[in-house]
Amino acid sequence: MDTSPDGVSVLGLGAMGSALAAGFLAAGHRTTVWNRTPGRAAAPALRGAVVAGSAAQALTASPLTVVCLSTYDAVREVLEPLPGAVAGRTVVNLTSGPPVDGQRMAQWAERCGAGYLDGVLMTTPDRVGTPGALQLYAGPAALFRAHEPTLAALGDALHVGEDHGLPSVYDTALLGLMWSTLTGWLLGSALIGADGPGGGVPATAFTDVAARWMKTVETFMRDGARQVDAGHTPGGQFPLDLHLMTMDVLVHACELRGIDPQLPRAHRALVHRAVMEGHGSDSFARLIGYLRDP
Amino acid sequence: MDTSPDGVSVLGLGAMGSALAAGFLAAGHRTTVWNRTPGRAAAPALRGAVVAGSAAQALTASPLTVVCLSTYDAVREVLEPLPGAVAGRTVVNLTSGPPVDGQRMAQWAERCGAGYLDGVLMTTPDRVGTPGALQLYAGPAALFRAHEPTLAALGDALHVGEDHGLPSVYDTALLGLMWSTLTGWLLGSALIGADGPGGGVPATAFTDVAARWMKTVETFMRDGARQVDAGHTPGGQFPLDLHLMTMDVLVHACELRGIDPQLPRAHRALVHRAVMEGHGSDSFARLIGYLRDP
Ligand SMILES: NC(=O)c1ccc[n+]([C@@H]2O[C@H](COP(=O)([O-])OP(=O)(O)OC[C@H]3O[C@@H](n4cnc5c(N)ncnc54)[C@H](OP(=O)(O)O)[C@@H]3O)[C@@H](O)[C@H]2O)c1
Ligand SMILES: NC(=O)c1ccc[n+]([C@@H]2O[C@H](COP(=O)([O-])OP(=O)(O)OC[C@H]3O[C@@H](n4cnc5c(N)ncnc54)[C@H](OP(=O)(O)O)[C@@H]3O)[C@@H](O)[C@H]2O)c1
Repeated sequence: MDTSPDGVSVLGLGAMGSALAAGFLAAGHRTTVWNRTPGRAAAPALRGAVVAGSAAQALTASPLTVVCLSTYDAVREVLEPLPGAVAGRTVVNLTSGPPVDGQRMAQWAERCGAGYLDGVLMTTPDRVGTPGALQLYAGPAALFRAHEPTLAALGDALHVGEDHGLPSVYDTALLGLMWSTLTGWLLGSALIGADGPGGGVPATAFTDVAARWMKTVETFMRDGARQVDAGHTPGGQFPLDLHLMTMDVLVHACELRGIDPQLPRAHRALVHRAVMEGHGSDSFARLIGYLRDP
Repeated sequence: MDTSPDGVSVLGLGAMGSALAAGFLAAGHRTTVWNRTPGRAAAPALRGAVVAGSAAQALTASPLTVVCLSTYDAVREVLEPLPGAVAGRTVVNLTSGPPVDGQRMAQWAERCGAGYLDGVLMTTPDRVGTPGALQLYAGPAALFRAHEPTLAALGDALHVGEDHGLPSVYDTALLGLMWSTLTGWLLGSALIGADGPGGGVPATAFTDVAARWMKTVETFMRDGARQVDAGHTPGGQFPLDLHLMTMDVLVHACELRGIDPQLPRAHRALVHRAVMEGHGSDSFARLIGYLRDP
């Protein structure tokens, strides 16, 4: 926490906006809030916030305003009538939407003479303000750096690039990674929890081990990423041939225990195809070619 | 590293056995090695190892022998003629195989009066000896603790329970988690790497962010594991209804960019089914019911 935190305003006190305002307050920032429907600032977590009577008042109360409304339509409805209030100030928009909406908002802000960062919150409201709560921002790097000390109050604040459409694309790609991971984890929990050795392992015990294993999986991802970028995917000590053999064991184990084998079969089919087409000594990263060009 | 490391023997100097022996040597253990086909101990990484002339010699040279051969058939072929050599000593078997093979080996070892741990190496040979290299062991907890200081030379040594069939089940479940995660990561890399905002993000840049995001995914896994064990899966701030909405965005993004939408569609179908059956306010962990009972 910096010693004399900057003031910040928050537009929108829904589930997420309220958590953002509470996070700024907890970090000692002078926090001004506004919500279309009055009364939301009465929540105990928002004690100490200055309640603005209008969006314009909130915008002009601080050098930085964070906006978190349900949709970009709502953001446009609130901000577009107020070009004068944003001029010379910075708006950080944490409302979810497609890439093009962030890019258009940035153009509007530029015309107004406002600094603009578009962002996504990769977390739930109850985790905002905890160290791991990831937020991704895009826009001018210098603008991000100027406000980073304030935004860091919300958790792990990261700048992903200049293009204001980037946070939205990251959001989608990272959620895709999450669904795959969580489904694989549930499948593992189902498999190891079924009657078998040890009489069925509790999901919590499995997850303790899984969390340690994910450090190794991360090294596979990092090695694979370098290969993807280089366009060269040698399999080294863990080639697709070896993946295929052990995938057969998983598919069989699911079938044996009555656990849905559909996803393991789909993963196996992808690897099988690559092996059949002569890529058995390539790494798992080689599969990106099949995802890009199914 | 302990100050007076115990001696250890290694049977099998294939890719993995050689890495194990090199790991023990690097940690300062007096290491005796044996391989069916002679000559493998000449590798530079095995400098300093004592080369035994037979499996029996290797077994009797140390209180602890680690076995890593291609299959359990090979392990039985080597060990079963030598009950006297294992009596009063400990065998740790790191050969891959089905749960029942580990359980049967344990029964044989018990009849011989030998201590027995069955284990799996969740890593590739080149990572053996690095701190994150995960190895899972099962058998008597006291026996594991007695040899843990030696086994820790190989990386992150973990005891997962008494039942000797457990490491094999963990292996399969953790590999399943890995394939799901890696496929989701490749899909994310394909999506964000496609022409779009920022002109296509390199896989290495995406992976840096993904690694930070995985810390949050881990908290979802841990919260979900407690729910699975409790048999109660309230959705809180991230219910299946919300997953479904954002999954539509992912499926659509894949379709739009020509990226294989098959896996996101399969994940979506699972969530859709749960929502249709009235579980929209449950958490993602609720899906384990559908995996267990497809
Ligand atoms: N909740 C999460 O877990 C989560 C996670 C990541 C990202 N997000 C994103 O964060 C944003 C906000 O989500 P939330 O959960 O806070 O939603 P919410 O609880 O439904 O709150 C919506 C907010 O938007 C305001 N609003 C809607 N239409 C408006 C309009 N036309 N003019 C002015 N204000 C308007 C609402 O004001 P009233 O009180 O006047 O209706 C309210 O403050 C969304 O884009 C969401 O995708 C949420
Ligand atoms: N490599 C990996 O990435 C990896 C990862 C995790 C687990 N594992 C597991 O580790 C084990 C060993 O794998 P590896 O990669 O080291 O295999 P490998 O390089 O093929 O070596 C196989 C070893 O087994 C020995 N062997 C085979 N049949 C034998 C028999 N009948 N009698 C005596 N010795 C016999 C071989 O001896 P010769 O030299 O005389 O043929 C050689 O030492 C396997 O169960 C594997 O699943 C490997």
